[in-house]
Amino acid sequence: MSDSLDTTLSKVKRGPNRASYDKTTALEIIDASLMCHIGQTKEGQVFVTPTCHWREGDYFYWHAHSKARNVKGPTDTPEKVCINVSLLDGLVMARSAMHHSVNYRSVTLFGVPELIDDKEEKVRQFKIFLDKVSPGRWEQLRPVNDNEIKATGLVRIKIEEASVKMRAEPPVDDPEDYNWPVWAGVIPMDRTWGEYQQDPKQPTAHTLPIPPTAF
Amino acid sequence: MSDSLDTTLSKVKRGPNRASYDKTTALEIIDASLMCHIGQTKEGQVFVTPTCHWREGDYFYWHAHSKARNVKGPTDTPEKVCINVSLLDGLVMARSAMHHSVNYRSVTLFGVPELIDDKEEKVRQFKIFLDKVSPGRWEQLRPVNDNEIKATGLVRIKIEEASVKMRAEPPVDDPEDYNWPVWAGVIPMDRTWGEYQQDPKQPTAHTLPIPPTAF
Repeated sequence: MSDSLDTTLSKVKRGPNRASYDKTTALEIIDASLMCHIGQTKEGQVFVTPTCHWREGDYFYWHAHSKARNVKGPTDTPEKVCINVSLLDGLVMARSAMHHSVNYRSVTLFGVPELIDDKEEKVRQFKIFLDKVSPGRWEQLRPVNDNEIKATGLVRIKIEEASVKMRAEPPVDDPEDYNWPVWAGVIPMDRTWGEYQQDPKQPTAHTLPIPPTAF
Repeated sequence: MSDSLDTTLSKVKRGPNRASYDKTTALEIIDASLMCHIGQTKEGQVFVTPTCHWREGDYFYWHAHSKARNVKGPTDTPEKVCINVSLLDGLVMARSAMHHSVNYRSVTLFGVPELIDDKEEKVRQFKIFLDKVSPGRWEQLRPVNDNEIKATGLVRIKIEEASVKMRAEPPVDDPEDYNWPVWAGVIPMDRTWGEYQQDPKQPTAHTLPIPPTAF
């Protein structure tokens, strides 16, 4: 049995039948998605910032310009941020407007960001991130330099307080509506990579990278 | 010239070269996406909730179970929520790790939610929402009833304080790196609808709905 991420804070209030606290499921959703939304406050005002994320073990990482709001180091009053990762999987078309829904996978995480300042660890993490996007590419690139490492802020939270919400099923209509004469079912959303667009400034043709998974 | 949504709060601090406050652009991104992320606080703790949204004129709408955190009516201390709408459009593969990026369209909105309690207006808005997802479908459905209207909370904010961030271009590498021997360019992300999955509980075949746009 997998670990539970259930806490008072991560307890799902609405639609608990679609919720779980299963760590394995949470990690799968985190790995399957490239972008998350980070919520935090500044002088009492909420800000939500979309950003790319990755994971190593029990830690959830993100990076940004070292001066950015969402990678600032610890302050006098460390804040527990809230991060949501969600994947839209399809439209659920029911017989009544109110039973329309979406199929989705979503994880909500809470934690106090921990700044990673060690140079070697930062580079190691950046490679893990790039390996998620395009395995094998890191080794082909112009190596990172000190200025780039310094200019990039890196933070993480431990994945220990979180909830999962998912829906992956046909519409659930009121029993008396199943004969209503309208098409009902699921329209899946597919995410795929389109045709690669080589940089017009590329002087010569190069081997294409290994195609990454579509997040 | 289009209206500006620029305010002290919506001013973009990081990457201002990718930012704008153009209302027409913001409305286009809002309409092109189905889901947003709403940030708000409860007793000082930030929560980020993914939800579906729609728009009419200058107003941004969402709904939820009438008891849900994110559609609660005005309290003694009305909070200005932050909402982000973002669409991932592709991976930007550069010659150095640090210049990798994503192409995207993103809008960040601020506003104090206004509860819509009028029954007729609620139904009118639910139809606008369904028309966004699948034009012409509302008229085919089993009509909404009073309990459903009551159980669904509806709120809106005026679109007047917001910022747009976008990236839609090839990698921008350091000048001396353009000859580095690695493929560089953009891998576009395509969102399409997969094969419709008719509800197994559907007793007879029905005409398929008009395919909605892929959000």
